Formats: sequence, C-alpha cells, structure tokens
Amino acid sequence: MDLRNNIRSIMDFPKEGIDFKDITTLLKDPAALNYTVKKLAENLKDKNIDMIVGPEARGFILGTPVAYELGLGFIPIRKPGKLPAEIESFSYGLEYGTDVLEIHRDAVQKGMRVAIVDDLLATGGTLEAAAKLIEKLGGEIVSIQVLIELEDMKGREILSGYEVESLVQY
Amino acid sequence: MDLRNNIRSIMDFPKEGIDFKDITTLLKDPAALNYTVKKLAENLKDKNIDMIVGPEARGFILGTPVAYELGLGFIPIRKPGKLPAEIESFSYGLEYGTDVLEIHRDAVQKGMRVAIVDDLLATGGTLEAAAKLIEKLGGEIVSIQVLIELEDMKGREILSGYEVESLVQY
Repeated sequence: MDLRNNIRSIMDFPKEGIDFKDITTLLKDPAALNYTVKKLAENLKDKNIDMIVGPEARGFILGTPVAYELGLGFIPIRKPGKLPAEIESFSYGLEYGTDVLEIHRDAVQKGMRVAIVDDLLATGGTLEAAAKLIEKLGGEIVSIQVLIELEDMKGREILSGYEVESLVQY
Repeated sequence: MDLRNNIRSIMDFPKEGIDFKDITTLLKDPAALNYTVKKLAENLKDKNIDMIVGPEARGFILGTPVAYELGLGFIPIRKPGKLPAEIESFSYGLEYGTDVLEIHRDAVQKGMRVAIVDDLLATGGTLEAAAKLIEKLGGEIVSIQVLIELEDMKGREILSGYEVESLVQY
C-alpha cells in the first residue's frame, strides 16, 4: 500500500511557502489507518519496548493505537499546563521563540525502554525534546517511529543518536 | 476490571475546587488501556457505525484505537487553525467566553453514521459542539461514548437527544 495516495498536500498552510502534509485523509480511510498502525507496530515488535510515548496532539492519534496493537501502555507528552501531576519540562528553540513540552515525572521509570511515535519528522525539534524529557527521567529511547519524514528538513541529523524510522518520505 | 483503580483524582487542578480525573495512569497501564478500548469498541460494534470522531486532544487518545479496533476510519475535531483544508466551525459558550471547534468539510458525508469518542463527559459543551458540527455536514450521531462521566455536571441533559454511554461514573 502506498500511503502517499492517502496523504494530501496543501500549499501555503499554515503559512506561505509551506507544503503541508495533511494526514486527515489517511486517518479517515479504514484500510490506510489499519495499515499505518500495523506497520508502525511491526517496526517495534521485536525491540522489547516497554512503553509508547506520543507528543501532543497528532502523536496521540498514532501513538495510542500502536500501543494498543502491541499490548503496551501509552504516555502523552503535552503542551504546558495540561498535565495535572508533578511534571518534568523541556524548552526548545523554534524558528522564532521557544516551545515547552511536559511529561508526568512518574510516567517513566529508570531503565524503561521507550518508543516515541509521531506523525511527522520535520526539523526534529519536537521529537528531540520528547526524547530528552524521557531521558531526563531515566528512560531509554529505543526507537522513534514517524509516519512522514520531510527529508529536506534534515531532522535525522538532530536525532542522529537515535534509531529513526519513517513509513513515507518526501 | 474496575477502571476507577486506574484513574487518579487530583484536587484543585486546573483551578481551586476542581477534582480533576487524570487518565494518564490508566493509559500507561497496558491492561487498563486494552480493556478501555475493547469496552468502547464493544459498545459500538453492532450499531453500524461508519466513522469514529474524536475531539482534540484527549479524544484523539481514545478515538483512534477504537476506530482501529472496529476497522473504521477516524476524524479529528480540532481547535481553530489546525486543520489545513476547508473547514466547518462551531462556537459554543464556556463559563467565561466562548470556544470554537473545527472539522474538515469533506470529512463527513451526508447520511454517514458517526460515533463520537472522548475521555470525559462533564458539562457536555464540547461533545454537543462536536455533534452539531457533524450534523451540520449531514452526518448522523449514532452514539457518544466516553470513558468518564461526571454525573453532577449533568452533561446528559444537554446531550438528551443522543445515545450517551460511559464506562465509569463519578
């Protein structure tokens, strides 16, 4: 199955010059959603993963069904102020300004083997922040799985210390 | 399985006097996540559902695995400015001010039988807005499935025109 047929390109969103990859057309197609979840889960099944982590918000969409398929639990990484218990936070630079991600401190135990699942690898900033958060809590990043990789943005360079796999490359 | 054992109560979050029901403790427990998804899917399996819809952000966490389990597609309802194609939007009143939800116009076809999945039924405002959005596009709300229902907040009254089922009541 070529998932490219289910991903829609929308020019100039969210701003001029950006060719946005819209996965809502994939998500609403039962066969494409099923294939995507199965493929991501397959990439992880022999890696002794303890837990799936997904960053808000599209990482929730793919991370939870992958956790479910593998019989694992799911940990959300969220934007500030959303998690109610004690949190660890990580700030990272964007093109303009900074962004912050948060995780519950009691979500990750020392030595836990974690896979991060997200929809998109672009600059790698969000995924790197997610990885750092998990490592701060003593977890080990065994794999980073994304649906789409935008190769020109060279996110793999920032993430060069980690295994990164993508289902579709542009 | 009593899911209450996996849901954590956190007092005074996000503001004083609120007893916040934290589902992250449920999500990270493989057996509890598996049970939750299977139960929600079971409640829908004989209802001839065409599509699962989930509101941002925690509706994504439960909606997609339920869609996956049932072999259906998933449609996200999002906060403003997140969906790249042509959208339908709906404003609804909160305690102070208003909030807006958006859906892709081409996500729902006329006559489509839709189930909404979310983590929480409190006042019912978000779920009602989600239902109205789908109906605006010609879809039919066959069922609303939530993990947690806060009975004192009487969300069922606002949603009295719909089938509403919850796995855990407080």
